[in-house]
Amino acid sequence: MQSSKKIAVVGAGLVGSLLAIYLKKAGHIVHVYDRSPDIRNIQFSGRSINLAMSNRGWRALENIGIADDIRKIGIPMDKRAIHNMDQSLNYQKYGKEGEAIYSLSRGVLNRKMIDLAEEKGVEFFFEHKVWDVSLSEAILHIGEEERGEWTDYKYDMVFGSDGAFSRVRHRMQRQSMFNYSQDFLEIGYKELNIPANADGSHKLDKNSLHIWPRGNFMLIALPNLDGSFTCTLFMPFEGENSFAQLNDEKKLVDFFAKYFPSTKEVIPDLVKDFFKNPKSYLVTMKCFPWTHNDKVALIGDACHAIVPFYGHGMNAGFEDITILSELMEKYGDDWQTIFTAYENSRKPNADAIAELSYRNFMEMSTKTADPKFLLQKKIEKWFSEKHPDKWTPLYSRVTFSHQPYSEALAIGDRQNEIMEDILAMESIEEIWETEPVEQRILALLEEK
Amino acid sequence: MQSSKKIAVVGAGLVGSLLAIYLKKAGHIVHVYDRSPDIRNIQFSGRSINLAMSNRGWRALENIGIADDIRKIGIPMDKRAIHNMDQSLNYQKYGKEGEAIYSLSRGVLNRKMIDLAEEKGVEFFFEHKVWDVSLSEAILHIGEEERGEWTDYKYDMVFGSDGAFSRVRHRMQRQSMFNYSQDFLEIGYKELNIPANADGSHKLDKNSLHIWPRGNFMLIALPNLDGSFTCTLFMPFEGENSFAQLNDEKKLVDFFAKYFPSTKEVIPDLVKDFFKNPKSYLVTMKCFPWTHNDKVALIGDACHAIVPFYGHGMNAGFEDITILSELMEKYGDDWQTIFTAYENSRKPNADAIAELSYRNFMEMSTKTADPKFLLQKKIEKWFSEKHPDKWTPLYSRVTFSHQPYSEALAIGDRQNEIMEDILAMESIEEIWETEPVEQRILALLEEK
Repeated sequence: MQSSKKIAVVGAGLVGSLLAIYLKKAGHIVHVYDRSPDIRNIQFSGRSINLAMSNRGWRALENIGIADDIRKIGIPMDKRAIHNMDQSLNYQKYGKEGEAIYSLSRGVLNRKMIDLAEEKGVEFFFEHKVWDVSLSEAILHIGEEERGEWTDYKYDMVFGSDGAFSRVRHRMQRQSMFNYSQDFLEIGYKELNIPANADGSHKLDKNSLHIWPRGNFMLIALPNLDGSFTCTLFMPFEGENSFAQLNDEKKLVDFFAKYFPSTKEVIPDLVKDFFKNPKSYLVTMKCFPWTHNDKVALIGDACHAIVPFYGHGMNAGFEDITILSELMEKYGDDWQTIFTAYENSRKPNADAIAELSYRNFMEMSTKTADPKFLLQKKIEKWFSEKHPDKWTPLYSRVTFSHQPYSEALAIGDRQNEIMEDILAMESIEEIWETEPVEQRILALLEEK
Repeated sequence: MQSSKKIAVVGAGLVGSLLAIYLKKAGHIVHVYDRSPDIRNIQFSGRSINLAMSNRGWRALENIGIADDIRKIGIPMDKRAIHNMDQSLNYQKYGKEGEAIYSLSRGVLNRKMIDLAEEKGVEFFFEHKVWDVSLSEAILHIGEEERGEWTDYKYDMVFGSDGAFSRVRHRMQRQSMFNYSQDFLEIGYKELNIPANADGSHKLDKNSLHIWPRGNFMLIALPNLDGSFTCTLFMPFEGENSFAQLNDEKKLVDFFAKYFPSTKEVIPDLVKDFFKNPKSYLVTMKCFPWTHNDKVALIGDACHAIVPFYGHGMNAGFEDITILSELMEKYGDDWQTIFTAYENSRKPNADAIAELSYRNFMEMSTKTADPKFLLQKKIEKWFSEKHPDKWTPLYSRVTFSHQPYSEALAIGDRQNEIMEDILAMESIEEIWETEPVEQRILALLEEK
């Protein structure tokens, strides 16, 4: 058990609320600050992609005994449903029998997490804007306006879980030897909606993550408990097939009729929602270090914001908490060692999931409709069922295991090299399920 | 001629002062703001590497008719003087006969540039701290303290030439779609000094850039007009042979006796200067875009801070001005087009000189003492003298030409591939000046 400290958590999002529960359980006094109003009292909307909780996320919830509470508000998705241009529908299982990722509404989940944290004795301070932090003293500077009066709040320790545009990190960024990068994609997104049927049932298969892959743009849909789906349209800001192009009602409707004809029946408010909802940006943010002495630590998006195409932003943030908690148990009151071990352990894995997420846009938007890619997936599945000890597909390593992301990435790259070799075999389309292919894969695996 | 605008330049450094002269000459009202006191009234010291002006820098000065004024305060260096561990001294010419880079003291040059700008009617406002900029309105927010009272100064246009930690860029950084990175080297530097002889003459050859290459650290010395040399010790912050290690007088003196014995006579104030002068950091900073509408543009280190190992920070910044000025002549009052063309033209070249500068630490600190590298240089020189139309060494492309940096980098990489092939020829040490080698290089050049 650690000595009790007075700890501030900046940001009441998913990572902040869960971290608060962990810290409270470890015996600390925990205050969570958030610049926004209490999400439990306001309409949540407009710019969120539904979350896909996978094993890393679940583990962090299980450790603290709240996984069952959360599972009740999630919907398992065990496959991708690919809506092809020719109107055909194609299902691609994510993993083995019984493996699934869970669709969760960000708003619903966040409310639940705050409720759970409060029940356990965490104190929340909403509409408290943290503008600056004195790093060496762990003092928060809070006020209505950036240029107005501020009040100082002194703590033993501060965690910055305040997201991609973190103010805590913003202060650290102005230190020497702080490495930092932010990179925006040329692709943005917009939220759309598929409402429930009149009887509350889902209009599409509810246990699938639906994708309409169209090359440099795509539409996806994730199920909600109320029978609706949250849809997200990803497309370039400028150029051909872009947000800039869809600048009036007719162009929008024609575009959807051409590329997403099957959505006509299920997205009734297309025009209204498209022109009402904001366009959102996608950024990859990396930095190092993540901590300042034994006083301040960044966690979640505040130190590793990634693009959403692997569905691992929240999962990676929750895994930060799992690792931090293990280190707290290991090193007790030696917070300097905890923080140093934490950032050194997590940084390479955060970089790896950033890379995987970036690459996965191409996989989702293009490759899921590519026969060669589908054949590769079939071969991998066939081989891994024959040799489960020798081959776990990359997606499963990332999603259904706790292998460090950096290892998963390295092994995945090696697997892709092997598969390139296999796909180049003569008449592979006909012979893929045969002994020579199996032997060739085994031989290539031996080479490393 | 452009219509006269009221323009603010933030930062009275080298790039800011030169830009101000250009803008004034183009018919604008030009106010330059700087947070520091007037450099002409204060002691300049402690943390600057001497500058090496080369052709790109000179061109920007020649265009505006001030090159002769500046040449008077510079010292030509036509070669590297390599001080080897075995005490031998080795000279390596930078270019052809008559080609040289010029050593200039940053302080002396900056004072001169401000004098010249004032003479031409530019107004300077020192000790004016710009804390923020309203980008779309070109309003500067100036005050004593970041959290104190600010006064607004409205302009038609603002240039941010306020260096690697630019406040103008800081505001742009908080916009969506602004890409940004800052990367610190694990290597820092410290200024030392070789004073003049009693008669005012230089203690070492004055027309050389002196290097003591020692692998992961090095000492360099550049001549000053007063007979002294400004020395810079580059070394890692931590680990073996690091600043962390040299934490007392004895360790420092022993270290210099072991690695730089020839400096014992010429750096009398080693101990005093070493422990008095600050350790400085080295950062590579990249960003994009560089402009905001037709209102704000970044220039010089504010948009492309690089490490100093190619001696091109100032040269690249001055070349920004040359290009901007050409675009002003071409597009007249269409500042939106000027700014867009400016950032698109300069960005790939800024990235290229960043890469070249980063790589050049290894060249200076290690390769200049490596026989293989020296042989490569000899072969390149020999071949380029025989075939000046077919081969210009990379250093000469970067330093003595106006070829875009990005082209120089690409061609340099190709040349290195060719040289690797040549250096792998049997007995190349003996046969390097022969027909077969010449023919082989010609053949390899043909292949591309």
